[in-house]
Amino acid sequence: MGSTFGHIFRVTTFGESHGNSIGCIIDGCPPNILIDSTQIEADLQRRRPGQSALTSPRKETDSFVIHSGILDGRTLGTAIAITIANKDSDPSAYKPFADKFRPSHADFTYQQKYGIRDWRGGGRASARETACRVAAGSIAKQVLAQTCGVEIIAWVNQVGEIAADIDHSTVSTKAVEQTPVRCPDLIVAKQMEELIKKVRTEKDTVGGVVSCLCKNVPAGLGEPVFDKLEADLAKAMLSLPACKGFEVGSGFAGTKMRGSQHNDPFVRVNNVVQTTSNFSGGIQGGISNGMPIYFSLAFKPVATIFQSQQTVNTQGESVTIQPKGRHDPCVLPRAVPIVEAMAALVLADHLLRQRSNTPWQL
Amino acid sequence: MGSTFGHIFRVTTFGESHGNSIGCIIDGCPPNILIDSTQIEADLQRRRPGQSALTSPRKETDSFVIHSGILDGRTLGTAIAITIANKDSDPSAYKPFADKFRPSHADFTYQQKYGIRDWRGGGRASARETACRVAAGSIAKQVLAQTCGVEIIAWVNQVGEIAADIDHSTVSTKAVEQTPVRCPDLIVAKQMEELIKKVRTEKDTVGGVVSCLCKNVPAGLGEPVFDKLEADLAKAMLSLPACKGFEVGSGFAGTKMRGSQHNDPFVRVNNVVQTTSNFSGGIQGGISNGMPIYFSLAFKPVATIFQSQQTVNTQGESVTIQPKGRHDPCVLPRAVPIVEAMAALVLADHLLRQRSNTPWQL
Amino acid sequence: MGSTFGHIFRVTTFGESHGNSIGCIIDGCPPNILIDSTQIEADLQRRRPGQSALTSPRKETDSFVIHSGILDGRTLGTAIAITIANKDSDPSAYKPFADKFRPSHADFTYQQKYGIRDWRGGGRASARETACRVAAGSIAKQVLAQTCGVEIIAWVNQVGEIAADIDHSTVSTKAVEQTPVRCPDLIVAKQMEELIKKVRTEKDTVGGVVSCLCKNVPAGLGEPVFDKLEADLAKAMLSLPACKGFEVGSGFAGTKMRGSQHNDPFVRVNNVVQTTSNFSGGIQGGISNGMPIYFSLAFKPVATIFQSQQTVNTQGESVTIQPKGRHDPCVLPRAVPIVEAMAALVLADHLLRQRSNTPWQL
Amino acid sequence: MGSTFGHIFRVTTFGESHGNSIGCIIDGCPPNILIDSTQIEADLQRRRPGQSALTSPRKETDSFVIHSGILDGRTLGTAIAITIANKDSDPSAYKPFADKFRPSHADFTYQQKYGIRDWRGGGRASARETACRVAAGSIAKQVLAQTCGVEIIAWVNQVGEIAADIDHSTVSTKAVEQTPVRCPDLIVAKQMEELIKKVRTEKDTVGGVVSCLCKNVPAGLGEPVFDKLEADLAKAMLSLPACKGFEVGSGFAGTKMRGSQHNDPFVRVNNVVQTTSNFSGGIQGGISNGMPIYFSLAFKPVATIFQSQQTVNTQGESVTIQPKGRHDPCVLPRAVPIVEAMAALVLADHLLRQRSNTPWQL
Repeated sequence: MGSTFGHIFRVTTFGESHGNSIGCIIDGCPPNILIDSTQIEADLQRRRPGQSALTSPRKETDSFVIHSGILDGRTLGTAIAITIANKDSDPSAYKPFADKFRPSHADFTYQQKYGIRDWRGGGRASARETACRVAAGSIAKQVLAQTCGVEIIAWVNQVGEIAADIDHSTVSTKAVEQTPVRCPDLIVAKQMEELIKKVRTEKDTVGGVVSCLCKNVPAGLGEPVFDKLEADLAKAMLSLPACKGFEVGSGFAGTKMRGSQHNDPFVRVNNVVQTTSNFSGGIQGGISNGMPIYFSLAFKPVATIFQSQQTVNTQGESVTIQPKGRHDPCVLPRAVPIVEAMAALVLADHLLRQRSNTPWQL
Repeated sequence: MGSTFGHIFRVTTFGESHGNSIGCIIDGCPPNILIDSTQIEADLQRRRPGQSALTSPRKETDSFVIHSGILDGRTLGTAIAITIANKDSDPSAYKPFADKFRPSHADFTYQQKYGIRDWRGGGRASARETACRVAAGSIAKQVLAQTCGVEIIAWVNQVGEIAADIDHSTVSTKAVEQTPVRCPDLIVAKQMEELIKKVRTEKDTVGGVVSCLCKNVPAGLGEPVFDKLEADLAKAMLSLPACKGFEVGSGFAGTKMRGSQHNDPFVRVNNVVQTTSNFSGGIQGGISNGMPIYFSLAFKPVATIFQSQQTVNTQGESVTIQPKGRHDPCVLPRAVPIVEAMAALVLADHLLRQRSNTPWQL
Repeated sequence: MGSTFGHIFRVTTFGESHGNSIGCIIDGCPPNILIDSTQIEADLQRRRPGQSALTSPRKETDSFVIHSGILDGRTLGTAIAITIANKDSDPSAYKPFADKFRPSHADFTYQQKYGIRDWRGGGRASARETACRVAAGSIAKQVLAQTCGVEIIAWVNQVGEIAADIDHSTVSTKAVEQTPVRCPDLIVAKQMEELIKKVRTEKDTVGGVVSCLCKNVPAGLGEPVFDKLEADLAKAMLSLPACKGFEVGSGFAGTKMRGSQHNDPFVRVNNVVQTTSNFSGGIQGGISNGMPIYFSLAFKPVATIFQSQQTVNTQGESVTIQPKGRHDPCVLPRAVPIVEAMAALVLADHLLRQRSNTPWQL
Repeated sequence: MGSTFGHIFRVTTFGESHGNSIGCIIDGCPPNILIDSTQIEADLQRRRPGQSALTSPRKETDSFVIHSGILDGRTLGTAIAITIANKDSDPSAYKPFADKFRPSHADFTYQQKYGIRDWRGGGRASARETACRVAAGSIAKQVLAQTCGVEIIAWVNQVGEIAADIDHSTVSTKAVEQTPVRCPDLIVAKQMEELIKKVRTEKDTVGGVVSCLCKNVPAGLGEPVFDKLEADLAKAMLSLPACKGFEVGSGFAGTKMRGSQHNDPFVRVNNVVQTTSNFSGGIQGGISNGMPIYFSLAFKPVATIFQSQQTVNTQGESVTIQPKGRHDPCVLPRAVPIVEAMAALVLADHLLRQRSNTPWQL
């Protein structure tokens, strides 16, 4: 269980890191949407390993096949299936760890849960499965853009101790894609890049923060009580490997504010009700209010470090391991398109849910 | 939609703040569990308004009726329904705001979503509905305690700028309940109390952080990919009114660490595999590893302040409002049992999900 | 589990036959629908026991309370809760059977499933819970009528060996309600009535068939593959106590036809595409085609007969039982509003699902 | 939507009849089950076209690829993906009908629903998608057999007017597979075969009935109220293309019985509680009682007949069509493995659901 996300725009994924292939089925995509497969390809390229000196050297072209649900470039309203072959899989590097639990990986917990596990590079727990999310999210983005003009922009806002301060009113995907580290502030980006290279040299890894901005989201998305828009965004983000935190709008900083500072006054501008500040982050009572939605995610440092570490094996004996394989010193740059994809999946699902709720013209 | 939480242990709630009553149905509770209704009552007492000088003066006894699913004190395995009457409802204070959007409340978004809204004290968006969560969560707690010995302890860790530093190995519910502010550090609790009183005097409100610790959670809870344990915890917490952030284990602080610091080495102690540190927060790869689970939530300051504020009315005209009614200057103390309840709902659901997954004795 | 029906228009019920009360939550009802509670009352009256000489003498007024989701007669878009008190509950008649398995009841299976059971009149397995379905279905009917003009008419088509042949083009609710047995053919109705009375005198029970016609259902409702409209109708109907069969359109009789007879030719009449015959029963490929939908359900004879019967007790010993209590000799007349309610729940859910699918005006 | 079936053992399918490929993801399969892929192959062979003179001549080897979820022949507990290529797809035969609605097909309803449709051989509505159900069902069968010894046997019980009367106590898969028509009565099978050949010669088609028997199903499967075991079986079966009816146990014939005849008395035999008759069909109150479960399904005659027919085109003009392509004169023989597969999916799902319900050993 656990491989399905969404209530109406619903994605189900499959695949182990070193299995035959990975992929997904998207059910509930509305009909007659134009799907540009070069956009899916472009998003997958932003996520794939081997794209820059900052990422894992595993070479996956991540070329994909669409099996169903689209005819002559348009969605049919039926289930869309996408597969991505695992071409550069190499389980041999993991063979020595088949009976050992790598610290802060999912080896131990999968073994406890299932009594069996795929030791080949993390198996189902590998971040390789996020390629499927990116493919599905790219379709969701196209649905959102065509029907509502929604634009989703994520970027690396912090690496280790180095943080940027990005102006939401001017940030653009173009600015994000200018640097391999995907931080739109060129000077800070350079510092982040240096830090990642230094950490790699030290055979270590480092964490950071990705921020995301969603513009032109129509008011009214999100459901009362449990399926609040921020609740589904939080779930989406915390379902990402290595994500340890989520904050929307004023987030943790807002806990130190007074209500009189934090409240967002309503005004009417050009016949549209807006707020003059946006500490709410575009969501009030779990429902979008038409203002930009923004949130941030904490990513812990990657667990695979090329250093000697203490752990136990499946017999419970103390052992020392020295991981090999192909890994990222910092997941942040590659996380950017994944965060955008998850945001798109949440928004597309709630957009379709809201269509059911819309007051009838009686 | 949106009123249901959980996949197997499933809670559905109903009710507006000033309607006839509120309540819930719990479906999927396992059979033959002893339910002590005094524990439900005790949890509701911890949440109810009017319990101390720090909370809203609305007087709700929050007495509840169990309608089904329990016979002679034991669960039948069938749906359990609970209702709580709204006894001290007083919509009159809200009448002047029936056509005005209170800033940072859900008035505007509900109107946008549905084209109609219950103006009586926030209606469905009111935090009053969390009483149902507490009742359902109290049953979930009893399931968890009886079947696995799980213990859940939440506390107020920060109010405004005042933060505590609580030792997870010694914190207890008793210590939490010692002070009206529900911070187990008596000195810090006193400071928090002063701050809340000061803020109330200033007709203002203040936010803060609740932390939560879950002990004795068996290894193996949580599902791969989307339904990771921390993802469902994040969703549960961000579904709470006023919650703007969530972090588990090392959280946002962990983003500044190196992998070599952050990894939790495995050791075997008394035949049980444990980790020597717990930056993972008891969850690895989305699945519990048997170590304590801990997380924190950010709450923004309450939106209702007894000060004059600018906003617009339903005609889009600029208006000034000066809220009345009965409100908390700080939700944190009352949020503690609610956070525990939501944690219990997530854990009970995943405990039952894991029973389906358990390897068969073939 | 199992107490929830529907994907968007979603009903969750609770309640045992002799517990405190029964009820339901309807989540996902669209906003701004006028709800006439006298219609709910009328539907409940058609289902309640004690309404005629043909039914159980249990006296339940089945008066109901709406707790939430409706303000000034209009739906708010939020969860609607309804409770119905059990006023004439009398578990004493069941006490002698608390440790015995009544043949063809759910006593044995609930005991096997849960290891505990509510022996008071069938508990959760009692048909008493269908009152909640009728209340929820009455709201669904009002949604369907107001938004699309859908009309749903069910009737008793067969009791024991006595069958009617009803003209779908003229049948009306008024005609159905003319007789206590709810068969719109007066002559056949009289024969059915006699049969039921005879069977009651013989301390026996008898089964039969309910047919149902849904008019003005818009084309396009139903989803490909698993959630076909007839599949959800079948599930809805087979979830009714005592229902053992379902057929839609030509049903079992159609199995003896040739394709050349069975195919429904399309024609255009007044700018609307119709079919000249309707062996499909208004559904093709799982999706409504705009023609009337019709189907039938088989009900077995009621299991409670006032005759001596062989069975075993909870110790597995052979025992003889002679049931008492208040029971119907034939459930068919009371099943009519229940069947209509379930049809309404399916159609309302699929109507809302289809709103999400509707091609966008781009 | 609509492409997912099941609550815990959950199958999601994709694919159009003449697209690139079809397939499915099975999520929630328990870990450590031995999967014999030759059994999947054997079940697919029983369903595939071109297997005998009675079926469509389309030549699909239906060779499949397992992409994930299985390692060294054992399930991992993670999502299992299977794809089946469409090798002998030939949309050209359908080109002339791209703008015409074939009678009693889903052409018109898909167009109405989505405003766009895949005209290539029925697209998503084609029975080709049932190959995915057979593959998934074959895995479900293996789960059921290994964990509980469940055996599922379906057969053709009626073709047109020719019906068999099969003894449930002796019927076997071997007997079913003896004849191409899959009726275990050799004499009746021969008559059915003649009828199908005659109908084919007449360029016509014919319907029939498939019956199914499930042995060794443990008591306790099925959930109260809406998710009764027979309700989910009914949904599963009515979701099959061309299925128009379902009956379980005594079914429609039982409507003519008296309670005194229909009730199944309990007895204890070798320490197991059984019933002396089985009109209930192994299910009471929606929950299995340990007796054999049996049910039947009505299939209408195939809609594609090679005769001239009246219909309308997408402009609403009257047109005559004369279908070509490759079609079955009678779906019944190929439906047998599909019915078994759907039964297996329902039972596997409820088996896993019941594991969550099982009373705890406290």
